[in-house]
Amino acid sequence: MMEDASMYIPTLGDMRAARARITPHIHVTPVLTSRMLDELSGARLFFKCENFQKAGAFKARGAANAVFGLSDPQAAKGVATHSSGNHGTCLSYAAKQRRIPCTVVMPRTAPQAKKDAVIGYGGRVVECEPSTSSREAVFADVVAETGAEFVHPYNDYRVIAGQATCSAELIEQVEGLDAVIAPIGGGGMVSGTCLTLAGLAPHTKIYAAEPEQADDAYRSFKAGHIIADDAPNTVADGLKVPLKELTWHFVQKHVIDILTASEQEIVDAMKLIWKRLKIVMEPSSAVPLATILKNPEIFAGKRVGVIITGGNVDLDKLPWN
Amino acid sequence: MMEDASMYIPTLGDMRAARARITPHIHVTPVLTSRMLDELSGARLFFKCENFQKAGAFKARGAANAVFGLSDPQAAKGVATHSSGNHGTCLSYAAKQRRIPCTVVMPRTAPQAKKDAVIGYGGRVVECEPSTSSREAVFADVVAETGAEFVHPYNDYRVIAGQATCSAELIEQVEGLDAVIAPIGGGGMVSGTCLTLAGLAPHTKIYAAEPEQADDAYRSFKAGHIIADDAPNTVADGLKVPLKELTWHFVQKHVIDILTASEQEIVDAMKLIWKRLKIVMEPSSAVPLATILKNPEIFAGKRVGVIITGGNVDLDKLPWN
Repeated sequence: MMEDASMYIPTLGDMRAARARITPHIHVTPVLTSRMLDELSGARLFFKCENFQKAGAFKARGAANAVFGLSDPQAAKGVATHSSGNHGTCLSYAAKQRRIPCTVVMPRTAPQAKKDAVIGYGGRVVECEPSTSSREAVFADVVAETGAEFVHPYNDYRVIAGQATCSAELIEQVEGLDAVIAPIGGGGMVSGTCLTLAGLAPHTKIYAAEPEQADDAYRSFKAGHIIADDAPNTVADGLKVPLKELTWHFVQKHVIDILTASEQEIVDAMKLIWKRLKIVMEPSSAVPLATILKNPEIFAGKRVGVIITGGNVDLDKLPWN
Repeated sequence: MMEDASMYIPTLGDMRAARARITPHIHVTPVLTSRMLDELSGARLFFKCENFQKAGAFKARGAANAVFGLSDPQAAKGVATHSSGNHGTCLSYAAKQRRIPCTVVMPRTAPQAKKDAVIGYGGRVVECEPSTSSREAVFADVVAETGAEFVHPYNDYRVIAGQATCSAELIEQVEGLDAVIAPIGGGGMVSGTCLTLAGLAPHTKIYAAEPEQADDAYRSFKAGHIIADDAPNTVADGLKVPLKELTWHFVQKHVIDILTASEQEIVDAMKLIWKRLKIVMEPSSAVPLATILKNPEIFAGKRVGVIITGGNVDLDKLPWN
């Protein structure tokens, strides 16, 4: 490892290198529009559909960039992460593309569907107890045993540079965006968006959208330093994790505001997107539309890019049933 | 009206005229693929996503062709139909685009959501009793009162020529298709597919897919004459209607086989498409994949176009809940 992946701040050059590196392994995802949602919001909305991305989430971008940036000797030892969400699945997908091993440490209490998704791409699941101390101990054992490269879900410049390719596509697909809004959990997608737009579309305002019930980024933003939530609980389960150093750097430097929405507003927005755009997407991906509908004065008359971050949802447990 | 719309057999020229006429009013819908569904089926599947079509269904094509083909004096009197499904919604959509009146006769027992969809596009709903005699009497009154042009859901050359534009797009989007498969109810989409492919891609085989529990087209095909079902009952509620003269003409002349699937197979295929393609589509649209998975010997190694006909589904009543 050349440097600590959580300390180096990625640049536009890193984004461009990522784009060249991952192009064979990811989809250029479509942008969808809806006249009805435009009428409802008073804005022109352009939905960047990462639910159609490989492995079902934007995280395939960052994972692929990390995996394909490894030297051959390091790659031979594989990659490892801890994640009970899309990052684990996407890292397994990327590792499969390079035909290298991938280990994902997950709490034994994680849904079987999440474990199956990792295994489905050829990854190995190692279970830990549902506590930070157990996770760290088990993960240290995995790395000691395999020599695998740790790829953090978001606090990693390779991951952020990968996520940054999403906005690079978006501004080529849609001209003259006044704003882009993305959900914020750990801040990987928002940081990538900041990286690209600050350099290539500096007049485009960047908003982050967060559940009221997991509003650590909002409170961090207002306080001026990272605040972690204590056991947040939201239907938008991809957004429970806290900001870290690298993502905080981008958020405090480039995000113009963080907007929040209630659980009911998130579920209503999710259903509206399913009904009108005819796409399957996660509750986390509905938070931006929920905040747009809640704050019409901010977005009225504007051309707004909305990042639909992923589509891996349990069809047997939809939040409105 | 120049001729009886249910007697004239449309040609490739009619399809081309339809395409020119409706282009400003419909979407060129995307074609989606899934590596996992290819592996599962052993075929290369190309899903033509009419769930993303205007008003949520391919029927916007035929409806727009009928509406925009009217003379100005006839258009001023409006259009009318009887339908409790997508055709009523799509005819209202098309009429709204031309700013002319549209009346849809529906049983008073039809779901409120279906009525709301018509009204949402500015159409007028006139209720009848849930019987053929009541529907015909009420519909006759509507036409007598308004002078509106009747646009049948499928037994109408203008409608078939409009639906035929879907396959014209598909063969431009995907080269070298060995087969195309579409669900069959009244046969409008299948007839349009026959019209286009028989003329422009004669080596592409045309299959129709039907629920076992509404297999009137299958039995008609085997018998050599139209057989109507007596009160069919299937989750694929868009496919309950029988063939008519015009659609029977195309089916018996150009369809190579009609394949059927059980209710459980249809629901399983629907869920698989939602999960893997991340799209919201109707049970009717899942029948083709259900029959492909059931008949691997027919499709193995082939390049197959699969028509996803529509996306208007009640999210509160999904068939697996």
